[in-house]
Amino acid sequence: MNTLHVDLGERSYPIHIGSGLLDRADLIRPHIPGKQVMVVSNTTVAPLYLDRLMASLDGLDARSVILPDGEQYKTLDTVNRVFTALLEARFNRSCTLIALGGGVVGDITGFAAASYQRGVHFIQVPTTLLSQVDSSVGGKTGVNHPLGKNMIGAFYQPRVVIADIETLDTLPERELAAGVAEVIKYGLINDPEFFRWLEANIDAINARDRAVLSHAIERSCADKADVVAADERESGTRALLNLGHTFGHAIETGMGYGAWLHGEAVGAGMVMAAHLSHELGWIGDADLSRIESIIARGKLPNRPPQGMDRTRFMELMAVDKKVLDGRLRLVLMRGLCDSVVTGDFDVAALERSLDQQIAEAIDWPPR
Amino acid sequence: MNTLHVDLGERSYPIHIGSGLLDRADLIRPHIPGKQVMVVSNTTVAPLYLDRLMASLDGLDARSVILPDGEQYKTLDTVNRVFTALLEARFNRSCTLIALGGGVVGDITGFAAASYQRGVHFIQVPTTLLSQVDSSVGGKTGVNHPLGKNMIGAFYQPRVVIADIETLDTLPERELAAGVAEVIKYGLINDPEFFRWLEANIDAINARDRAVLSHAIERSCADKADVVAADERESGTRALLNLGHTFGHAIETGMGYGAWLHGEAVGAGMVMAAHLSHELGWIGDADLSRIESIIARGKLPNRPPQGMDRTRFMELMAVDKKVLDGRLRLVLMRGLCDSVVTGDFDVAALERSLDQQIAEAIDWPPR
Repeated sequence: MNTLHVDLGERSYPIHIGSGLLDRADLIRPHIPGKQVMVVSNTTVAPLYLDRLMASLDGLDARSVILPDGEQYKTLDTVNRVFTALLEARFNRSCTLIALGGGVVGDITGFAAASYQRGVHFIQVPTTLLSQVDSSVGGKTGVNHPLGKNMIGAFYQPRVVIADIETLDTLPERELAAGVAEVIKYGLINDPEFFRWLEANIDAINARDRAVLSHAIERSCADKADVVAADERESGTRALLNLGHTFGHAIETGMGYGAWLHGEAVGAGMVMAAHLSHELGWIGDADLSRIESIIARGKLPNRPPQGMDRTRFMELMAVDKKVLDGRLRLVLMRGLCDSVVTGDFDVAALERSLDQQIAEAIDWPPR
Repeated sequence: MNTLHVDLGERSYPIHIGSGLLDRADLIRPHIPGKQVMVVSNTTVAPLYLDRLMASLDGLDARSVILPDGEQYKTLDTVNRVFTALLEARFNRSCTLIALGGGVVGDITGFAAASYQRGVHFIQVPTTLLSQVDSSVGGKTGVNHPLGKNMIGAFYQPRVVIADIETLDTLPERELAAGVAEVIKYGLINDPEFFRWLEANIDAINARDRAVLSHAIERSCADKADVVAADERESGTRALLNLGHTFGHAIETGMGYGAWLHGEAVGAGMVMAAHLSHELGWIGDADLSRIESIIARGKLPNRPPQGMDRTRFMELMAVDKKVLDGRLRLVLMRGLCDSVVTGDFDVAALERSLDQQIAEAIDWPPR
C-alpha cells in the first residue's frame, strides 16, 4: 500500500492506494469520529463491494443508501434522497458519510456531507480509475442543474480517501480507458517524466497490472495535489486541470451526454488542444504525434466526433465556464508537458485547427 | 449611521446600521466585484423596497428573483428556483447575490450563494428586526427538510450587511416583537449593561424610535459577533445563542409551525430557562421577575402555550439538536445576564419547573 498526504493545513488528509483496502478497518475507523455512518453507493457498485465495506464498519451504527446509477441522477433531488435517509436514521451533526462508487457517487455524497446540518464528516472510497485519480483530490463536490453541469456544489474535503485497486477488476473496459485519459492529462500538464513512464507502461495499465496501476494513481494524485494546493479555490493555475476539458465539454454536450464518456471526450479534447498548440507553433510535429499516439494506445478517441461542425464547437465552447469577460481561455501547450492557461491566441488559428481536426472526425465507439 | 466590523480574518465584513441606507450606492457598490447581480426578495418585501435597491445598482447587470413569502417556502426547491434564475441569466462564478428581506430570504439566498458554482459573492440587506440582529452575524444559511428545520445548509459569510432601520416602519407589530425577543436574548446571555438599557428603553423600541432601534441592533450584533468569533463553526460556546431556543423549538413544533412566531416562542422559552434556573437556585426571585417583566413589556408571551403537557415538552426537547450522547443540554442562567451551556442539572427539577410553568399556560396571541 502507498499513502499520499494532501497538504491543506488543518484540512489535510491521507490517500491510501493498494489492493484489498476495502477490508482494512484499521484504515477507515480512525477517521470516523462518531458512531453514525451512512454509506452512499449505487445499484451497480453496492452488490459488488458494499458488504465488504460494511464488515469493516462492524460495531458502528452503519447504514447505507443506494442510489440509481448514472450521471442523469446527479441532481439536487438525489442529494435530497441522501438527506432523507440521514434524517430518517436521526443522524446528527457528528455523523460520517462514506462515498462508495465512482465520480457521480462521490460528487453527490460530498455535497450532501457539505450541506447536511451545515457540514458533517466525509470519506471517499472511489471504485473507478477516474474517481481514484480525479475525485480523490481537490474537494470539488456537486450536482448538475438542467441548465448546466456541476453548477451546484461546494468545495469540501474528505477526511481520508481509500482507493482499492482491486475494485478496478470489475470496471468495464471503456470506463478504465476514460480514467486513463485523466492519468495521461497529469503527464501532459507538467510532468514529462510521468509522461515518458506512461508511454512505457500504457499496455500494462490496459492489462490492469496492479503495481503499474497503483503507481499511475499515486503519481496522478500527487500531481493534482500540487496544482490544487497552490490554488484550492480555483482562482488561477488550478484551471490547468481543465486541459482538454473545454473541447471535451463541447463534445459531451454536442453529442448528448452519455454518448461519449467524459474521459473519452477529454482524450479527444487533449489532442485538439495539442493540435491548436501545434498550429500556433508552440509544439512540434513529433510532440503532437506522441500525444496522438498515447491517447490511441489508451483506447481513447484521438479525433473529434463525426457530426459536429466548427460553428457548433465555437458556440459550445463559448458557454463553458472558462470564459472570462467574453474572452475564451484555453489550456494549451507551450511545449510537451508544459501547459498554460491562456486567452492569448489567435481565434483564426483556433478556427483553422478545428477545421483540420473536424475533417478527420471519427465514429466512436468503434463498431 | 453606525458601522460594526465582524472580525473573521479574511472573511471579515462590515455591518452598516442606519436610516435611508437602501439608497446608498456608496455602501453596497464597493462589495460587488463583478457586473452580474441577482437580488433575491419575496412578494411582500419586493413591492416596498426592491426599486430603491435596484436604483442603487444602476449601471450593473442587475436582475431580481421574487420568491413566495413564508417559512413553508424555505426549501431546497426554492433554492433551486434561484439557481434557475442565475443560469437563465447566464451568470458566472463572479456574480453577486443580494438577499433583500427577512430571515427566510437571507437563509435561502445565503445557501444559494454558497452553492452556486461552488460559491459566489453574497450581500445581506435584512428588512426585519429579527434578521437585522440575528442573520446579520454568524454565517448560518440553509433551508428546511420535511423531516427537520434548518437541516440543509452551509456556513457562509456575507461581504457586507446593510441594515436600513427605515424598513422596520412597515414591519407588522408581532414581527417587531419577535425581533425584540432576540435583542433581549443578547442582554440575558452575558451583557447586564445592555439588559438594563433595554429595561429603560423597551417602550421606545416598541414605538420604533430610530435612534433607540439603531443602538439595540448595533449592540445585539456586537454581542453576537463576540460569541461567534470565539466559535465560528459552533462547536462549543456558540450554543449560548440558543438561550430559550430548546424550549422555544418545542413550542414551535408542538403548536404547529407558524402558530407562534419563532421570536415569540423564544421569548416564552427564555422565561422557561429562567424559571428552571430559579428552581435550581441559580437566580433569585427578583431576577426571575425582571426577566418575566421585560419579556411581557416587549409584547411577547412569558408563559408556555395552552395545550402542551410536560410529556410533550420532554419528548420534543429530546429530539432537539442540542442533545449530545443522549444527555439534554440547555442554556441556563448561573445569574442574571450570565448564561451557561450545561447538561449538569437535575432532570427532576426540569420536570417540576415545567409543571409549574404549564400550570400558568396562556392563550397566544391574546384575543
